Amino acid sequence: MASRGELLYPESDRVFLEPYLPPPDRQVKDAGVPFVTLTFATSLDSALSLAPGVQTALSGPQSKAMTHYLRCRHDAIMVGVGTAIADNPSLNCRIQGVGGYGGEGLVGQPRPVVVDPLGRWQLTSETKILKLAKEGRGKAPWILTTKTPDSENARLLEEVGGCYIVLGSRTGASEERPSMTWLDMLRAIGTRGIGSIMVEGGGVIINSLLSAENAEHISSVIVTIAPTWLGQGGVVVSPPRTEGSSLPVARLRKTKWQQLGDDVVLCGSLGA
Amino acid sequence: MASRGELLYPESDRVFLEPYLPPPDRQVKDAGVPFVTLTFATSLDSALSLAPGVQTALSGPQSKAMTHYLRCRHDAIMVGVGTAIADNPSLNCRIQGVGGYGGEGLVGQPRPVVVDPLGRWQLTSETKILKLAKEGRGKAPWILTTKTPDSENARLLEEVGGCYIVLGSRTGASEERPSMTWLDMLRAIGTRGIGSIMVEGGGVIINSLLSAENAEHISSVIVTIAPTWLGQGGVVVSPPRTEGSSLPVARLRKTKWQQLGDDVVLCGSLGA
Repeated sequence: MASRGELLYPESDRVFLEPYLPPPDRQVKDAGVPFVTLTFATSLDSALSLAPGVQTALSGPQSKAMTHYLRCRHDAIMVGVGTAIADNPSLNCRIQGVGGYGGEGLVGQPRPVVVDPLGRWQLTSETKILKLAKEGRGKAPWILTTKTPDSENARLLEEVGGCYIVLGSRTGASEERPSMTWLDMLRAIGTRGIGSIMVEGGGVIINSLLSAENAEHISSVIVTIAPTWLGQGGVVVSPPRTEGSSLPVARLRKTKWQQLGDDVVLCGSLGA
Repeated sequence: MASRGELLYPESDRVFLEPYLPPPDRQVKDAGVPFVTLTFATSLDSALSLAPGVQTALSGPQSKAMTHYLRCRHDAIMVGVGTAIADNPSLNCRIQGVGGYGGEGLVGQPRPVVVDPLGRWQLTSETKILKLAKEGRGKAPWILTTKTPDSENARLLEEVGGCYIVLGSRTGASEERPSMTWLDMLRAIGTRGIGSIMVEGGGVIINSLLSAENAEHISSVIVTIAPTWLGQGGVVVSPPRTEGSSLPVARLRKTKWQQLGDDVVLCGSLGA
């Protein structure tokens, strides 16, 4: 590790990822939606954490550095509001050489996108993502919502250059069927010039994207698995079954498994 | 695949397994318990099958051949009664060259051991494991129980050379705390000359063995993961948490991840 929390991720460990990453010069596709990489780390029993809101160290230092490398290869990163509230995450990229970590301006920093349909996220001066934007070590966040933003939140956000993006709500919303559709969300950010986005968590967002209804939006999957069992009661990645179907929900193609320290990284594609 | 359902597993794919297997000349240890290899195949969401009793094709042909190779490297294989009833499994080894598959007698065939504490398994002339024993293509099973065996079951079993092993029941039994302890079971088969055993399933047996109370009995873990999500509602491997503990239940050491077809095989050890 270098100064200021900079991370190093060796060239030799980048090669296996390349076929699963958006091309560096990628523009928004015809349909107006970005290249979507789904990436997260689980235990052997498919848990993201020991319990809701409990940050759980799962993967090793090499996997962590890989995550930051992946961030510099995408225009944006997305998390759900649950993760934003529980973890107060940085959502920036600390790979040595990107903007704020040895590089110029904000080059290589992804745009943080927080999915907050009901406007639950209260911003404060302690919100890490805002602090980093102020310090020039990360881009200001966009928040996707269906509600009229709270005015104090909006002020704090606009102060650092971020914004709310208000989308129409769909009827019959539930946890499995969020009030904003994935297509609407992806179009909204595609329209604003995001050619590639990395969806990082948490459980609600991941299971929603992996469901049969939405999986078509996934371009690539990059999953880290740590050789540990968290045990019953964790926050689990397991998409909902399609009603009436007794088939597996999703299967990856063109798979590549790569050991990284004690962990494994699984890369693959969904769909045809 | 060769004749009579014989399977081939190439030498080149055997090397990575070797450090995790019982030595070929292994005798029962001082404590009187065998070398225990825990092995199973799951989906990415840690499911063994889509639902209880539903056989689910998860891993590819190479992983299947590996399982049969592992069987010839152990003196015995163990499954729970749920698996025995639901799958009517063969529990023999079909690797080319073992007894019944090109080899002499029953050389290389493991002893099937079925854990049936309450005597639920009804044997019939259609029970595969008995048929294979009759045909000289597998060893006759041992059944571990706490109940007096049904006389017709006992007759069918003894006819092919198998037997019941009746153990004392412990008080306060439940699914997580079976009526026979692992130590009692392992001693019972160790006493009978079994130097190594491969525990294959199903979910109840695996979660019980992986629990903090019992994991010390595991010598090696060999897990296959297929790149598919079965979705919510499957039969899941996730050991129970220790009461009052907020720590991961178990973590593997000396891990080796090896891609095999589309799947990955994870080898590791538990404990110190």
